[in-house]
Amino acid sequence: MAKVIRVNMTDRTVTVEPVPEQYAALGGRALTSRVVYDEVPANCHPLGPFNKIVIAPGVLAGTTAPSSGRISVGGKSPLTGGIKESNAGTPVAQKLGRLQVKMIVVEGQAEDGAYLLKLDKDGAALLPADDLKGKLTREINKDLFAKYGKKAGIMTIGVAGDFKMSNGGICFNDTEGRASRYAGRGGLGAVLGSKGLKAMVVDDEGSPGVEIKDKELFKQGQKKIVDAIRSHPVTKPDGALNTYGTAVLVNILNEAGGYPTRNFSTGQFEGAAQTGGEAILEAVKERHGGMTGHGCHPGCIIRCSNVYPNPDGSEFTSCIEYESTWALGANCGIANLDIIAKLVDQCNEIGLDTIEAGVTIGVAMDAGVIPFSDGEGAIRLMEEIRQGTPLGRILGNGAWFTGKAYGLTRIPVVKRQGMPAYEPRAVKGIGVTYITSPMGADHTAGYTIAPEILAVGGKADPLSPEGKVELSRAFQAATAFIDTTGYCLFTAFPVLDIPSGMEGMVETVNSVLGTTWTTNDVGALGLETLKLEWRFNKNAGFSKEDDRPPEYMRYEKLPPHNQVFDISDEELDKIWAAFEA
Amino acid sequence: MAKVIRVNMTDRTVTVEPVPEQYAALGGRALTSRVVYDEVPANCHPLGPFNKIVIAPGVLAGTTAPSSGRISVGGKSPLTGGIKESNAGTPVAQKLGRLQVKMIVVEGQAEDGAYLLKLDKDGAALLPADDLKGKLTREINKDLFAKYGKKAGIMTIGVAGDFKMSNGGICFNDTEGRASRYAGRGGLGAVLGSKGLKAMVVDDEGSPGVEIKDKELFKQGQKKIVDAIRSHPVTKPDGALNTYGTAVLVNILNEAGGYPTRNFSTGQFEGAAQTGGEAILEAVKERHGGMTGHGCHPGCIIRCSNVYPNPDGSEFTSCIEYESTWALGANCGIANLDIIAKLVDQCNEIGLDTIEAGVTIGVAMDAGVIPFSDGEGAIRLMEEIRQGTPLGRILGNGAWFTGKAYGLTRIPVVKRQGMPAYEPRAVKGIGVTYITSPMGADHTAGYTIAPEILAVGGKADPLSPEGKVELSRAFQAATAFIDTTGYCLFTAFPVLDIPSGMEGMVETVNSVLGTTWTTNDVGALGLETLKLEWRFNKNAGFSKEDDRPPEYMRYEKLPPHNQVFDISDEELDKIWAAFEA
Repeated sequence: MAKVIRVNMTDRTVTVEPVPEQYAALGGRALTSRVVYDEVPANCHPLGPFNKIVIAPGVLAGTTAPSSGRISVGGKSPLTGGIKESNAGTPVAQKLGRLQVKMIVVEGQAEDGAYLLKLDKDGAALLPADDLKGKLTREINKDLFAKYGKKAGIMTIGVAGDFKMSNGGICFNDTEGRASRYAGRGGLGAVLGSKGLKAMVVDDEGSPGVEIKDKELFKQGQKKIVDAIRSHPVTKPDGALNTYGTAVLVNILNEAGGYPTRNFSTGQFEGAAQTGGEAILEAVKERHGGMTGHGCHPGCIIRCSNVYPNPDGSEFTSCIEYESTWALGANCGIANLDIIAKLVDQCNEIGLDTIEAGVTIGVAMDAGVIPFSDGEGAIRLMEEIRQGTPLGRILGNGAWFTGKAYGLTRIPVVKRQGMPAYEPRAVKGIGVTYITSPMGADHTAGYTIAPEILAVGGKADPLSPEGKVELSRAFQAATAFIDTTGYCLFTAFPVLDIPSGMEGMVETVNSVLGTTWTTNDVGALGLETLKLEWRFNKNAGFSKEDDRPPEYMRYEKLPPHNQVFDISDEELDKIWAAFEA
Repeated sequence: MAKVIRVNMTDRTVTVEPVPEQYAALGGRALTSRVVYDEVPANCHPLGPFNKIVIAPGVLAGTTAPSSGRISVGGKSPLTGGIKESNAGTPVAQKLGRLQVKMIVVEGQAEDGAYLLKLDKDGAALLPADDLKGKLTREINKDLFAKYGKKAGIMTIGVAGDFKMSNGGICFNDTEGRASRYAGRGGLGAVLGSKGLKAMVVDDEGSPGVEIKDKELFKQGQKKIVDAIRSHPVTKPDGALNTYGTAVLVNILNEAGGYPTRNFSTGQFEGAAQTGGEAILEAVKERHGGMTGHGCHPGCIIRCSNVYPNPDGSEFTSCIEYESTWALGANCGIANLDIIAKLVDQCNEIGLDTIEAGVTIGVAMDAGVIPFSDGEGAIRLMEEIRQGTPLGRILGNGAWFTGKAYGLTRIPVVKRQGMPAYEPRAVKGIGVTYITSPMGADHTAGYTIAPEILAVGGKADPLSPEGKVELSRAFQAATAFIDTTGYCLFTAFPVLDIPSGMEGMVETVNSVLGTTWTTNDVGALGLETLKLEWRFNKNAGFSKEDDRPPEYMRYEKLPPHNQVFDISDEELDKIWAAFEA
């Protein structure tokens, strides 16, 4: 029987409850956002006793559906001040699914000390974990695997979370146990830090497995989505993602003039070729070590991840994604993959979101803290964060905070969350997503790059403002659904282009939940979640003025297209007008 | 003829314009708030090119009306993100009044460099002032008096403004030329810093003087308000304010259990007696130096200011007000007047609001940066701000920013502005003012301490939540009017208790403006200004959630009365309900 684990950090009690009826057909983001909406006072202090953290595997996590090992973490974000759902691909999602844990709700606050939540088939327990505080995530994983066995699933926060920094993320292990998969965005690691929950260990030995209500339907849907993933050029074996990883996008976005460089001051980076997916593959081949085509969780058939090697071929770190090579590369003017890998590794160890970290360093460089392109300087800045020095406190609280500390006006954030690797002035649909998503600037919330750049799911001119509000709304709605399923967002590529793929997605979900949704319901289901998220933010004090681009993007022209962000406020306000009612 | 000086920092032009008809009957805060509402896009970046600074002397500044040398500075605040009016008592107000300068509007942004605005009877000019950058305000005043003569009036920002810190204030000289009178709250010095306007020199030699439309009425009103001030126990010669200064309140508030101590963790300070007004007077007498009964501008007949002496009797600094001895004393657990004087002096030199600085240090102490009561440590923290180190960048951006840097939940701010020296849990009307004022936490915005503690203008139980919304609204409205007149807010004590005093205030205003207001109009006139301020904030994205106490004050009981802040959100929302229409 599916269950809810409720962890009260104030009195350190753990209860196991049945899943309330109204949550039965939810999972992943739909569930975390719903529970945060229902249980967290919208105007509470994100680091105070009334915030909660909700951890929910996607509906299909733990089944044999392909690439479905995603886990969602929700709460009120100390970075944005609004609702947050941040997700990751990890075996932990699958283990929770197999244990039939629908969600874990962490509430209250321990007065002091650090604790570990241990979950297995027999139940859940809170154990003291003061020994883990202050450690790097790699050390924590090492300790916990030694204690609980190699097959454990581990969630932890790093020192950034201990320090309650707004860029403190939540780290999950990958297939081989690396502390490398992050629910990174929005500082939910700081919320766990404020509660005193340092880590979670999940042991699924002897677990009952995911209950599938209609096994035939599951099989049918599974085959459809597997076929779609395996036949689409972006996701197929030896396709773009599998071969080069997500960083295949570097040269594509650079070519399009939408690759934000040196704190979003231009849309092209002279070091793109040295830092893109092709260069990562070359390093793997030349150094005879590391790998591309790596999967973050078992059962992934896209496998876009990688392990980057040292010059001697030994393993260095995982993973250099598109976002991380951009954030810590082009955005800082750094054209050296080994330095970028070092910075990624530091983020992993310290417990930081690589996007926010890179946007922050870019802002710090623009403020003159260190010069652009100073890779060794950037490594030192990360070390400041690890030590929690005053400069580290500034940087660890993210790009907006850093810009404010230094009196900057060029701070590329929305709702105080740093913008990802697509320039909104050059790719306007993604700009609408950044600006209007309840999550703050987030590319995954409505990835219009698909039609605007990749001609997937239709085709749209990236420079044109026309129709982008509608485009972004449709993508945000579909995404909110996908984020509930457990499927990786990259399944959207085949699913958008291949109708039977979308059928397979919905059928597998129906087979587990017992629902009878059709592909036509996807948008409406996603909008239900978005509406709750939007309402939470409104209750938290957000207004239309929070759905705005940074002021300077309205008047500073971005080379090479010399474009400003020219979708009007009135147009932007149309996106959620239906929610006002 | 009254005029408007418009300074465009982008192209460094200065124009002199006639006063638009609709601004003719305004002055001080009514004028700055109106122009900010009319001309500044509410959602602009406070440090960007679209914000403006409006400087306006009060209506009576420059006349012989008593205690009327106040000047208002308005703009969008980088501290609160909302509208801000901050005022000071200074000869500069009077000189501008006599030059018939109704207001100065500073707009645009210089690309680089620092500039000085020179005003005299012949007009206005912008001059390069790079030599002033990075200097302490005391050095700036010394340089400028040497260059422009001892009779000049000087406005300047300190390094805090150069650094664009959210606690950068605007410094005006006092009667003897000290750099000691501040439009301190809300970081408007940072806005001047962002524009490149470092200083202003006002020379009123040969000025026409304030045009008084009805000289007989002026005389009549002047006599009434002089008589009222001279007869009220709080403001009369050798009365409480004149003898002890504003710090006469220290023991009174401490006795009432409403004197916030060690970052608002208790309402009584064991070092109150050593740091109050009586102790200041004793130091002046024992050391045979310094003075109490000092006036911040010529013509003040209250004279609540002081000059604090060194142990050898020589002059140290001016002035140790109630707010500063509290902020840098009790709130930091520091019970030593000489250390407090040093901290006040550092604020003056660096260009900081003493309230925000003290609340910030209290927060930093609570976060463990230095221990409570560590006076030498506090002096070092101020030095960090002066140098603009990373820690200085944190502290210079105020209490909210510092609390956020260290992940604290006990941050005594509203709209991110630090709370002044009255505990809202022990004196609930002032709590309503803090929470609902468009200015952020500000005692001067609606000083209900008068009836709640001093039995002036009626009598109210400080611990009771009853009727406090109405009380605060009435005080906020009256204050918004007084802040336009040029009269010091302390004239409110006699004016509230003595009907002819209020008549005198209104008559003197009428005599200059040609208006025919009665004492019954005061509230409505004040509400007009408050409504514009509230609307500006709403347009800037503020919601009811910004009119809330810090969460912890709802559940952490304050000794010795063990009270929480128990006026409900619904009750608070009534205060400006009429503005919603």
